[in-house]
Amino acid sequence: MLEELREQVLAANLDLVRAGLVLYTFGNVSGIDRDRGLIAIKPSGVPYQRMSVDDMVVTDLDGRQVFGELRPSSDLETHLVLYKSFPAIGGVVHSHSEFATIWAQAGRAIPALGTTHADYFHGSVPATRELTAAEVDGAYVRNTGTVIVEAIGSKDPLAMPAVLVAGHGPFCWGRSAADAVHNAAVLETVARMALHTLALQPHAVGISQALLDRHYFRKHGAKATYGQSQISKAPS
Amino acid sequence: MLEELREQVLAANLDLVRAGLVLYTFGNVSGIDRDRGLIAIKPSGVPYQRMSVDDMVVTDLDGRQVFGELRPSSDLETHLVLYKSFPAIGGVVHSHSEFATIWAQAGRAIPALGTTHADYFHGSVPATRELTAAEVDGAYVRNTGTVIVEAIGSKDPLAMPAVLVAGHGPFCWGRSAADAVHNAAVLETVARMALHTLALQPHAVGISQALLDRHYFRKHGAKATYGQSQISKAPS
Amino acid sequence: MLEELREQVLAANLDLVRAGLVLYTFGNVSGIDRDRGLIAIKPSGVPYQRMSVDDMVVTDLDGRQVFGELRPSSDLETHLVLYKSFPAIGGVVHSHSEFATIWAQAGRAIPALGTTHADYFHGSVPATRELTAAEVDGAYVRNTGTVIVEAIGSKDPLAMPAVLVAGHGPFCWGRSAADAVHNAAVLETVARMALHTLALQPHAVGISQALLDRHYFRKHGAKATYGQSQISKAPS
Amino acid sequence: MLEELREQVLAANLDLVRAGLVLYTFGNVSGIDRDRGLIAIKPSGVPYQRMSVDDMVVTDLDGRQVFGELRPSSDLETHLVLYKSFPAIGGVVHSHSEFATIWAQAGRAIPALGTTHADYFHGSVPATRELTAAEVDGAYVRNTGTVIVEAIGSKDPLAMPAVLVAGHGPFCWGRSAADAVHNAAVLETVARMALHTLALQPHAVGISQALLDRHYFRKHGAKATYGQSQISKAPS
Repeated sequence: MLEELREQVLAANLDLVRAGLVLYTFGNVSGIDRDRGLIAIKPSGVPYQRMSVDDMVVTDLDGRQVFGELRPSSDLETHLVLYKSFPAIGGVVHSHSEFATIWAQAGRAIPALGTTHADYFHGSVPATRELTAAEVDGAYVRNTGTVIVEAIGSKDPLAMPAVLVAGHGPFCWGRSAADAVHNAAVLETVARMALHTLALQPHAVGISQALLDRHYFRKHGAKATYGQSQISKAPS
Repeated sequence: MLEELREQVLAANLDLVRAGLVLYTFGNVSGIDRDRGLIAIKPSGVPYQRMSVDDMVVTDLDGRQVFGELRPSSDLETHLVLYKSFPAIGGVVHSHSEFATIWAQAGRAIPALGTTHADYFHGSVPATRELTAAEVDGAYVRNTGTVIVEAIGSKDPLAMPAVLVAGHGPFCWGRSAADAVHNAAVLETVARMALHTLALQPHAVGISQALLDRHYFRKHGAKATYGQSQISKAPS
Repeated sequence: MLEELREQVLAANLDLVRAGLVLYTFGNVSGIDRDRGLIAIKPSGVPYQRMSVDDMVVTDLDGRQVFGELRPSSDLETHLVLYKSFPAIGGVVHSHSEFATIWAQAGRAIPALGTTHADYFHGSVPATRELTAAEVDGAYVRNTGTVIVEAIGSKDPLAMPAVLVAGHGPFCWGRSAADAVHNAAVLETVARMALHTLALQPHAVGISQALLDRHYFRKHGAKATYGQSQISKAPS
Repeated sequence: MLEELREQVLAANLDLVRAGLVLYTFGNVSGIDRDRGLIAIKPSGVPYQRMSVDDMVVTDLDGRQVFGELRPSSDLETHLVLYKSFPAIGGVVHSHSEFATIWAQAGRAIPALGTTHADYFHGSVPATRELTAAEVDGAYVRNTGTVIVEAIGSKDPLAMPAVLVAGHGPFCWGRSAADAVHNAAVLETVARMALHTLALQPHAVGISQALLDRHYFRKHGAKATYGQSQISKAPS
């Protein structure tokens, strides 16, 4: 069932490891088949080196498991909230990548300090508010999704494909599982550069709106001029 | 004698190298057979690349060597104090991993600034007091064990499986030698992220007790819901 | 057409990846044949691992494409401005290498804090001014070249083979495409060391003019005494 | 001539690369045969990957070349001063390893902030004064040796096997070329940990004299108890 989606989700999980964004079994990637309303997600706590396509768990948008023997990732419910709230996205990643997590632990949004940021994120990458004790003690994983959606607010989730969950770490998304991993990798680089930029220039306010728009829109949207017609849209 | 334990201890020592926590012959791992009251530990100053199962030294809890030709690690007596004081632990690691050592050199406890920390350490990772000149000039290695035990105080050693020895570096432990190395690797990541988090947010006070408990107890103890039934409990 | 130049440019692009200065398809290298007035440059947005000699695009100094099926790098016009303004250079690199980009994001010139810097850059590596909104909205890529040329001013471009474009990242050049990549790699190291030097010594003013000259001129110019007669001039 | 020494010096130069202390052809190692008063040293500006035993240059203590076709390292005269001033040393290393260079650029001695430091360096690692313009314009390379000797002063060079040349980088030494490289690698780690320790604890004053002595003398000198009888003395 949904073998192609499970293959894509497995590949994306392994790419997350190759990109150096994972320690032990931390991190998880999922992808969705919008027509069927089914998602495939990494199982909980299985070492990456022995993970197979058949270990990928399939559930519906209410979390009912329809394929697979293993328990799904313990973050499943956060993924479900994001798929339900952001109809255009096709994949979700949660990692504990170090510098994105550092900003999350600091509870600070990452300002757009350069064009590397602007090529992927159209503005500051927001941090969520902290969850209340009641939210933590209750449906914690689902509530994590809720504060992410709150932090995106009226923004276009594809123009801001990442949020930092305060005291926890980043969640990223994209048009597909692969795209979400790509965004997670760039977020980590952007986070690391932003931290050191502020060390060097504590009062840095970031690039102008003109430069932010220029870089973002040359890669995204109807007027994009970047790359060849069929291939990936990273900057050259 | 105790070949299986020696194999586990050798494997754990080599994992410590693979995890990037070791420079030259720095660092040592031991494991205990509680039934027999015997421990296996790395020999002193032998390069990792030519270390064999038969190089692992076996001693009793008073440090009397019962197997092996080589001298045991010069930190043996610290390990013995920990095994005697913490009856539930099965393995001990000492590394000079860089960021944990940095916190040790600063003499500061690592506050729980995020859920990566909370998944493994139920509160701040304590730093010991400095040893007095008399303690350094006397039974120095054993006294190092004593200040570690002092720093743990009434905490459950399995819920706080690491201490930073002031001016020196981390000691970690766990249910087995492998588990102790796993904790040492996570400690290093947590230490690195905590340092940079404080650079970004000098007044960070850390996550709430509710969040700390939620993450710690979903992975540990009677009500753990994390992972598959038989496999490792790192977060996904 | 110009197969040898295209081979050199491909090799230099791949060296940029090997030097760790590239994430995904970020970054681009070009080289020029001064006799024919033609440049070869990386195509836009093609993954490095499947890039071939025939993917390299050839254009004249006005950007008219004379060889190749693919679109040239979106930074082509910046390269053209540099070739036209600096007649002695033979290759140009744009990377988003992390620490050089951090200085660019901070909008600060990198002071000459040590002899590693002086071996390659005869003075502070300048940062450009920010582009105005009109420059960004207009011929943005060409205007990027203009502010670089402005930042070099009356300096010899071969004695200062790098500029930091404010809010963006470094552009480097050299006698050839390979030489430009070499300079980009050293710039990254120099940038990383300079940032940490200022963290340790916020009031560091840099090395003396005597030391700067000594190191620079023992490797460059008529009186160079460094290296063997035919081989590369990195310091030993 | 002196083939065994040349082999050791080549191996030590390649170890320097493997230890990650070298960029391009930066860095050089030499070794001495005290009986004959001859040293072997890396040639100037030759890429490491194609360096052979016969490329190693042999000179006497006045720098007269007695073997080899290539020019010796441009830092030869600094090495000669050290061999003449420190009769007990057998090998010398100059690297631009990043964090040791950062302390050199900051012109600051590295305080003994932990036992990793104390295992190798019996006190703060000194920084030289800056060379005067006359010293730079004159016999610069030899004068670099002179300020290093000045910085060691009455210390035992084997108990303090490293100096930071202000605005330049580290010189290290040891009983042999291999030992000097070992010290250079530990210095780099110690330098990196010290920088971050001061970021975390700006007023850190370092470990007690008792702890410094304990660690240093358990590995060095007549009463050393560390390691097995014949093998290397790195801590375990």
